[in-house]
Amino acid sequence: MTAKPAVQALLFDVFGTVVDWRSSIIAELTQFGARKGLAADWAAFTDDWRGLYQPAMEEVRSGRRAWTILDVLHRESLETLLVKYKITGLGEADKAHVNRVWHRLKPWPDVIEGLRRLKTRYIIGTLSNGNVGLLTRMAKNAGLPWDVVLGAETARAYKPLPAAYLASAAVLNLEPAQVMLVAAHNGDLAAAAAAGLRTAFVARPAEYGPQQKVDVRADRDWDVVADSFTGVAVAMGC
Amino acid sequence: MTAKPAVQALLFDVFGTVVDWRSSIIAELTQFGARKGLAADWAAFTDDWRGLYQPAMEEVRSGRRAWTILDVLHRESLETLLVKYKITGLGEADKAHVNRVWHRLKPWPDVIEGLRRLKTRYIIGTLSNGNVGLLTRMAKNAGLPWDVVLGAETARAYKPLPAAYLASAAVLNLEPAQVMLVAAHNGDLAAAAAAGLRTAFVARPAEYGPQQKVDVRADRDWDVVADSFTGVAVAMGC
Repeated sequence: MTAKPAVQALLFDVFGTVVDWRSSIIAELTQFGARKGLAADWAAFTDDWRGLYQPAMEEVRSGRRAWTILDVLHRESLETLLVKYKITGLGEADKAHVNRVWHRLKPWPDVIEGLRRLKTRYIIGTLSNGNVGLLTRMAKNAGLPWDVVLGAETARAYKPLPAAYLASAAVLNLEPAQVMLVAAHNGDLAAAAAAGLRTAFVARPAEYGPQQKVDVRADRDWDVVADSFTGVAVAMGC
Repeated sequence: MTAKPAVQALLFDVFGTVVDWRSSIIAELTQFGARKGLAADWAAFTDDWRGLYQPAMEEVRSGRRAWTILDVLHRESLETLLVKYKITGLGEADKAHVNRVWHRLKPWPDVIEGLRRLKTRYIIGTLSNGNVGLLTRMAKNAGLPWDVVLGAETARAYKPLPAAYLASAAVLNLEPAQVMLVAAHNGDLAAAAAAGLRTAFVARPAEYGPQQKVDVRADRDWDVVADSFTGVAVAMGC
């Protein structure tokens, strides 16, 4: 029996795990709407926007569509929703600004302290379906102290395809078992574990709002189970 | 006549521009040799090691050799030099440790302050022939506060091939003219300029030791010419 190698890098799912996309976007769209004199159910709009995320990526994952970054997929979904919600009169600059709300998402309250502690001992980085440009700007806006920003371009594959996990470990010159994925989503962790990575679940039971039904708790005995990044730091000896 | 777009990102050549590879390696090999009872002209050994860098990359650039990362090229060169310098008796762990000296290079004295100032206003990152794993570990060891680590894997092309510059701008979702390359090497800047990037020269007249003949000064009217990273920061309004 061979012992597993020590973890050298913790890589993080971003949307939902690091940042509270739903509250961030609702707050910004509400302000934007008030400024522009636009009325809409911005919570429903936000949930719809996120709802179009998986189907848009699935077109790429399936091979039906050529490689396309998330900024572009977000923009296409935005155009669809502006029609659905009958929001008119926005120019290109307004639409581009709204689409970049994904670059301005706010972290959950425990994130910065947890990352700072983990960074003292491990390489910390992203393992996200976001594009590198989006993730880099989000990190600058939010003060996320990543050592390395790995996005969907690292493998040109969207999670949960195995290549997304394997390429992220490889680009750091690590074996999969030397990398731990931290995520609030059991499905993401299941795919990471199947690719040989270690796993840490962080509960974000309000990611989808007060009615959230999925991923409210760990559904397997992941290597680490915590309810905050500081909890992960403690579990990892930081 | 169209005005150039504003610079959004400063990307840095690393070996020689950010870190003083020569002094760092000589110092470490001297200590290592003393500890192991090995005698050699470590300055000559270091210069030879760097001397094998361009020929090794040229095998890959030319297409004669499949894509290979710098950690591997450095290791092959190290093996060559251990034979040349008749250094025997090193085991795998010793050789791996010595090869990772490239992960432990020290920055020039002006680097950290200059980067911290530039980071307040621009995306700062690497645009290096180093692999991402090497650059990430170097940054952690040296405290380099990069927003994003872009290595040779970003384009799978070694500078000065145009793809290396163009892919680094593209992965940040920027036009080439929105990116400035900072380098101590006129040839690197010439290739960047030909690809449409902005250019900043920082003189590192002792990179190759006291006898340095090349790149002691800017040989063209680059967008910025400075003798330190703090000088670049001042020129860029930081």
